Parts: sequence; structure tokens; C-alpha cells
Amino acid sequence: MSGGLGAQQDREKELEVLQFWKVRVESELDQVVAFWTKNSHDPEHGGFLTCLGHDGEVYDDLKYVWLQGRQVWMYCHLYRKFERFRQPELLDAAKAGGEFLLRCARVAPPEQKCAFTLTRDGRPVKVQRTIFSECFYTMAMDALWKVTGDTRYQREATEMMDQIVHWVREDPSGLGRPQLAGTPAAESMAVPMMLLSLVAQLGDEDEVLAGRYAELGDWCAQKILQHVQRDGRAVLENVSEDGQELPGCLGRHQNPGHALEAGWFLLQYASRKGDPELQAYVIEKFLLQPFNSGWDPNYGGLFYFQDADGLCPTQLEWNMKLWWPHCEAMIAFLMGYKDSGNPALLRLFKKVAKYAFLRAASTCRGAWPCARRCWAPW
Amino acid sequence: MSGGLGAQQDREKELEVLQFWKVRVESELDQVVAFWTKNSHDPEHGGFLTCLGHDGEVYDDLKYVWLQGRQVWMYCHLYRKFERFRQPELLDAAKAGGEFLLRCARVAPPEQKCAFTLTRDGRPVKVQRTIFSECFYTMAMDALWKVTGDTRYQREATEMMDQIVHWVREDPSGLGRPQLAGTPAAESMAVPMMLLSLVAQLGDEDEVLAGRYAELGDWCAQKILQHVQRDGRAVLENVSEDGQELPGCLGRHQNPGHALEAGWFLLQYASRKGDPELQAYVIEKFLLQPFNSGWDPNYGGLFYFQDADGLCPTQLEWNMKLWWPHCEAMIAFLMGYKDSGNPALLRLFKKVAKYAFLRAASTCRGAWPCARRCWAPW
Repeated sequence: MSGGLGAQQDREKELEVLQFWKVRVESELDQVVAFWTKNSHDPEHGGFLTCLGHDGEVYDDLKYVWLQGRQVWMYCHLYRKFERFRQPELLDAAKAGGEFLLRCARVAPPEQKCAFTLTRDGRPVKVQRTIFSECFYTMAMDALWKVTGDTRYQREATEMMDQIVHWVREDPSGLGRPQLAGTPAAESMAVPMMLLSLVAQLGDEDEVLAGRYAELGDWCAQKILQHVQRDGRAVLENVSEDGQELPGCLGRHQNPGHALEAGWFLLQYASRKGDPELQAYVIEKFLLQPFNSGWDPNYGGLFYFQDADGLCPTQLEWNMKLWWPHCEAMIAFLMGYKDSGNPALLRLFKKVAKYAFLRAASTCRGAWPCARRCWAPW
Repeated sequence: MSGGLGAQQDREKELEVLQFWKVRVESELDQVVAFWTKNSHDPEHGGFLTCLGHDGEVYDDLKYVWLQGRQVWMYCHLYRKFERFRQPELLDAAKAGGEFLLRCARVAPPEQKCAFTLTRDGRPVKVQRTIFSECFYTMAMDALWKVTGDTRYQREATEMMDQIVHWVREDPSGLGRPQLAGTPAAESMAVPMMLLSLVAQLGDEDEVLAGRYAELGDWCAQKILQHVQRDGRAVLENVSEDGQELPGCLGRHQNPGHALEAGWFLLQYASRKGDPELQAYVIEKFLLQPFNSGWDPNYGGLFYFQDADGLCPTQLEWNMKLWWPHCEAMIAFLMGYKDSGNPALLRLFKKVAKYAFLRAASTCRGAWPCARRCWAPW
């Protein structure tokens, strides 16, 4: 009886924690959306200015395609899923962003390759030889299709998605990366991770596309799981094509934020599949382990990069605490808690949230989340 | 009389300072050379392993072409200029490094484009679309020519130099950078700065080459001086082709270590020209100003990057203190003191040297100077 009472009390306590953070996060979200709608829209060219200071001043007018796509997606998502954000101005801004991408993102239309950065009026500045600009483009178009019902956006989303899948699974030559004799045949976790998130996006409330990309989702999950290495003790960012550890810094490279992010994409996948075994495995290998090894025992916060042997990573920024891995961790732990009911995951959410919100308000001169991605010490 | 006595006492004090640091730096140099000769040579393939831990252990076997070229140059320079380093094993290692570069640095011989990184056995891993690998190649070949008298090395140096000059002054298309409609026509200070250092290297004790590259030296100096902007109050890393400030973060970008490095190349140039006015201008604009604005008033040390308007640079590593800008500063201030006799410059040398040597020994797990380029806080 007392055990039952204790469990009920624990459950009530957990609901209190959830309620507290729900209110807090809602209020943060309102402020963030108000800041970005006030300061980031470009009425002249469409799209969004993303290099903004605390007071909203534009300190650079380069347009990053990732951020254009993410903001379109975010506005559509808010409009579609939250009553209080069903505002015509949000939808109009999303459409203006989408039209800017349609008009300017491709470097040399009708080729599908997109730029990484554009001038304010949409001329290409820089091209990365990866798939990620195109992924954010796809995400934006699918979100616009879902909210407007305009099939032009849907066609754009699926055509770009098919192009990305072709580059990843059949022939990467269109990305423009030269084939060099010494380049290791490494597979980066970022690629199947990003694709798995697109599979979830495209399949959301769309059974036809969910079916069309189901096999791709299985492939992505399998590819991500290959990054669990060293008898299950470490998630490594890069592995060989046959799923083995690579030599040197490249092979030992770890990114705790990526592991946690992959974790929540895999949790969504396990939930779609109704696979509790996979769910438990993902919580262990992609949430708890990367958090335990990636959390700074002295000052708190998640390291940006680590070396699986504890050596010093070669990237100068390796021991910085960036905002995005903490966001990924909060999402991952909340999702893990929702799926499993394990209160330890809620406690970890709380730990990361406290760390993040204590620092987010005061330590960066940029807007949060900002294009500078840092919490720099002043 | 007392003024004369005071000046003499000051001069004696300065000589004491110089003597102290000469002994200290000689001892550091001996230790550094011993470390690298013991741990970095690759007897199997030639060339040098440069990712080394404190104890000399190899933590990655990628070969960076910049570092191969620099180490060849360093060994040749030590062998040629210092009696105590006239050791056959240093020269043999330099030659083995040079032969490795001759055999492996070019990506697709007979094309002159060099790789940025190579596998241990010399296969290309990564190519940068800049001139810098080729500059370090040229520097190595010229140093080998000067120490061995083997004309094969001289031919390599001048042929590569001519190729670099062609890319910089006539046609950059061979570097492989795509021409994009929105890319600003920016000129980076790094390019004329690096070329000016090569002009000094090739012309050192070689009147024919000094004459051949004299006009190029004038051109480089002129180009570097265009980076003094804002009525002489700031050195900006990037300017437009006609020497104006560029908009946005790119235009406001500052790199105090680069300014100091350009400073000592310009001091060498002013000395060759016998131009005391230029010397005074360079000390003011490239040594004192960048030091005053680039030195951290709270914790000491030179920032890696700054924004000329005091905004937060977008590069995450902007406020880190790296070893190389402090080396550049020490060289620049000593050279400025030698040329001008201004004791303020010797005091600044001392300030930087104290800061650097206090930290170099204890804070980095890597060898110093190390491939990781950082003094990371532990």
C-alpha cells in the first residue's frame, strides 16, 4: 500500500516538474518567436536575416540556406500544431521564405545542388559539397505543403528528397567532391541521421509518403546503429563502409550532441515500428552513455567534441558548450521519458534544462538560439 | 651627464633582458628540436608525423603538407645558420622530407596543385582551393637548394613560385574554386603576406632571385598596406579589390596574429629597401595598434579573431589564445626593437614572452608548438 502511495507521490512530483518546464518553455518560445518575427524578416527579398544581435540589429546579411529552411519549417510547424500560433503573418513569412528558397537556393538551376550561403538578394556565395542544404530545403518544402496544401511544394520536397537519396545511396559525384586516392571511405553518422529525420517529416500525417520512405527509414536506422562501437561502449561519428572503427582522429571522433540527436530520431523510429527492445537499446546507447561521457564533470555542460581514447581533439572548439547539443539533449530525454516512463530520464532533462536556461539569458550577446551557436564566456 | 648615464644604464638593462631571453629561447629551441627529431621522423616513407602527444606518441598519422614544408625549411635553416645544428642527421631528415614532398605533394602530377593532407604513405586526402600548401612546398624546396646546392630543388622552388604568382595575379581558375555570382571580390591579407615572406626567402643570399622577385615584393607590400583601414586605426583581414572596407562580418574581420606577422614581413621589406618612414609606419600600424586592440585586458594573451566594431565574431574559437600569434608577436617586437631601438618594443616582447612561456609548458597535452595550435584550458 505504502509502495503504491510512494509511487503515486513520485508520479505527482514528476507531473509538477513537467508542468513547471512546460510553462517555462512556452514562455521562452513566445519570446523567441516574437524576437524572430520582429527582427528577422526581409520584406524586400523574402527569406530571413539570421545574424542578429540581442537588440535585433542585423550585424551581417548573409542568408544561410540551413537557417532559411529551418525557419520556414518552424513557422509552418507552429502554425499547424499550436492554436496560438495560427497567425496569418507567420504563414505569410513562411511562404515568403519558401519562395525565396525556390527562387534562389539552387546554384545552377535546374540542377538540384543548393548553395550554403546566399547574399541578401539571393546570389550564391558558398557551396558545400554535402547534402545538408538540400535537406533543409526539403524540410521547408514539405512543411509548406502540409500547411498550405499547395502541391507545388510537395513536388519540390519529394524531387529534392529523391535527389538526396540518389547522392547518398547511388552516386555522390553530383555533390562535386573530388575522388582522392587517400580519402578514407568513411561514413558519417550525420548523413543517415539527417535522412531519418526527413523520413519522419515527410511521413508525418501522410501514409503514402510514410510507405514510400519506409525502407529508407530502415536503412537509415541500420546505418546509424553501426556507429555504436567498442563493444557497445561508444558512439563514434565516423565508421568504415562495413561498419568498423577507422584509424586515427577521424575514427575516434565523438560528438555527444549528435549522438543525443540521433537518439531522438531513433526513438521516433522505434515508436513508429512499435519496437520496445530497440527503444531500450537507444535510450542506453544514444542517450545515457553519450550524456555520461559527454557531460563535463567539473563545470557541467556537454562538450562539443571528444576523442574516444580521451586524447585532445584537434578541433579548437572541442571543449566549448554550444546551445544546440543542450537542446538535443532536452528533447531526447523528454522523449525517452515519455516513451519509457523512466524518471531518471526526466531528472536528466531537468539537469540539462537548468544548466541551459541559467546560461542562455545572460552570456551571449546574440539572440538565442543564435547564428553564432556559442555560449562564449565574456 | 646624468641623462647620458641614465641612457647607458637603460641600455645595459636592455642588454640584460635580451641576454636572458636569448638563453631561455636557445634552451627551448634545443628541447623542441630534440623532441621533433626523436619523435616525428618517418623512416619508412620520409616526411614527418606531426600529430604527437607530450610523450611523443603518434595520435594520428595524417601528413599536413604545410607542416612537412615548414619542418624541411626549419631543419635547413637551423643547419645553415647555426653551428650547433650543423648535424648530418638534420640535413638527411630535411632531404627525406623534401623527397616525400617531391614524390607525393602534387595531387595529379604534372599539375602543380598540391594536397592539404596526405596519408602516411603519401596519398592525397584533402585539397584546399588556396595557394598555401604550394607556398610551404616552395619554401621547403628553396631551403633545400640553399643548403645542398642541388639545382633540382631550386628549379622546383621557382617553378612552383611562378605557378603561385600566376594564380594570384593572373588567373585563379587552376585553384578549382567555382565562380559564384554572390561571392564578394575580397582580397585576403594572408595571400600577399605569404608571398612577401617567400620573396624574402627566395631572395635571401641570392641576388639573382632577389632581383627577379623585387617587383613582386613591392606589389605584395602595397597590397598588405591596403588592409590598413578606418583612417589608419585598424588592420582588416579582408578588403575589396580596390582597397575599400567590405560590408558585414567579412569586412570587419580582424586577426591580430596575422597583423603582427604581416608586420615583421613588412619590417624585413622596409629594411631591404632602407625605408625608415615605412619602418615607423609599420611599427605603429602593424605592431603597436593590433597588439593594443588584440591583447585581452582581463586575462592577457592575444585574441584569435576580433570584429572591428567590437561585435562577437562568428567563429567559435575567436577568443581563444593560440600559440602562433604569440610567436609572431615575439618575433615582430624583437625585430621592431632591433630596427628602431625603441625600448617600448622590447618591453612588449617581454610581456608576450612571459605570458607565452608561463603557459606553454603546462597547459597543452600536445607537443609545443603542436598541431592542435591551442592552449586549451583543462
